[in-house]
Amino acid sequence: MGIREPLRELGCGLPHALEVMGERWSFMILRAALNGLFHFEEFSQELGIARNILSNRLSKLVDHGVMVRTPCEDDRRKVVYCLTEKGVGLLPAMLALRQWGEKYACNFAPEVVLVDCRDGLPVAPITVRAADGRELTWHDLGWQTPDKIGQPVPRFDEGKVKEKV
Amino acid sequence: MGIREPLRELGCGLPHALEVMGERWSFMILRAALNGLFHFEEFSQELGIARNILSNRLSKLVDHGVMVRTPCEDDRRKVVYCLTEKGVGLLPAMLALRQWGEKYACNFAPEVVLVDCRDGLPVAPITVRAADGRELTWHDLGWQTPDKIGQPVPRFDEGKVKEKV
Repeated sequence: MGIREPLRELGCGLPHALEVMGERWSFMILRAALNGLFHFEEFSQELGIARNILSNRLSKLVDHGVMVRTPCEDDRRKVVYCLTEKGVGLLPAMLALRQWGEKYACNFAPEVVLVDCRDGLPVAPITVRAADGRELTWHDLGWQTPDKIGQPVPRFDEGKVKEKV
Repeated sequence: MGIREPLRELGCGLPHALEVMGERWSFMILRAALNGLFHFEEFSQELGIARNILSNRLSKLVDHGVMVRTPCEDDRRKVVYCLTEKGVGLLPAMLALRQWGEKYACNFAPEVVLVDCRDGLPVAPITVRAADGRELTWHDLGWQTPDKIGQPVPRFDEGKVKEKV
């Protein structure tokens, strides 16, 4: 990611993602939904968020296709908010953020650990990988134009990471 | 992630991550820094952000140890903002968000593609993986208490994902 020119929009997906999710409550609602909450009252109670803000954020997530608002099967006078495939697609981003927070938060002692149900072992740290599965670091990355995919690009110059002082 | 009890804070890293990064501009500044920008003026020009907001966000990122503010080596009257190891640690989260945005944004046609410098091939989609490297989906995940790591947990019940209607 060491070439300056392509920094400008150039079809980067990040601004779109942040338009949808670039607000603290959006991710907290997503977390609650991934944990199995459906109802407005559940979100309200779980998140301790003002009802008008919750209503606004849920509507925005529905508008963007992250959640869908449907009648509750048990009681059709009520509605439930369900994640769409697009919403579940945010799982890697959310877990990467969560893992980063766990790694760097002070005095962090989790009471529960996210595991693979099958073997009860913690999920691996989320990493950036090459097409063949090798793990990549920041310095392995570069930008290539679509017509030159498969041609090597200059390696990012080193020494740009400084430890916290 | 289908058990309700552990949803409450319980040492989740997400709130900490969002405290630091839960604002649109923080990620856009991070993106610019990962692309090799260092100077206040560069960020200002690149992002088109109001100078007082940029100043505020840079200070916050420095306070949280994501960036470090040091004198410029070429001209010690100037300062540069460099990513710390903690800052570079946000790369997987940022790329996962970016890839999600790319996948779901309308009419998306990237002018450049993020590649492995060595072979010029696009990086793989960021996924959640088990300790042994298997790819995991939402439904494979569960919560386990630290004292019971290695013991299977109930599989998340299915049918909670609904397609966008």
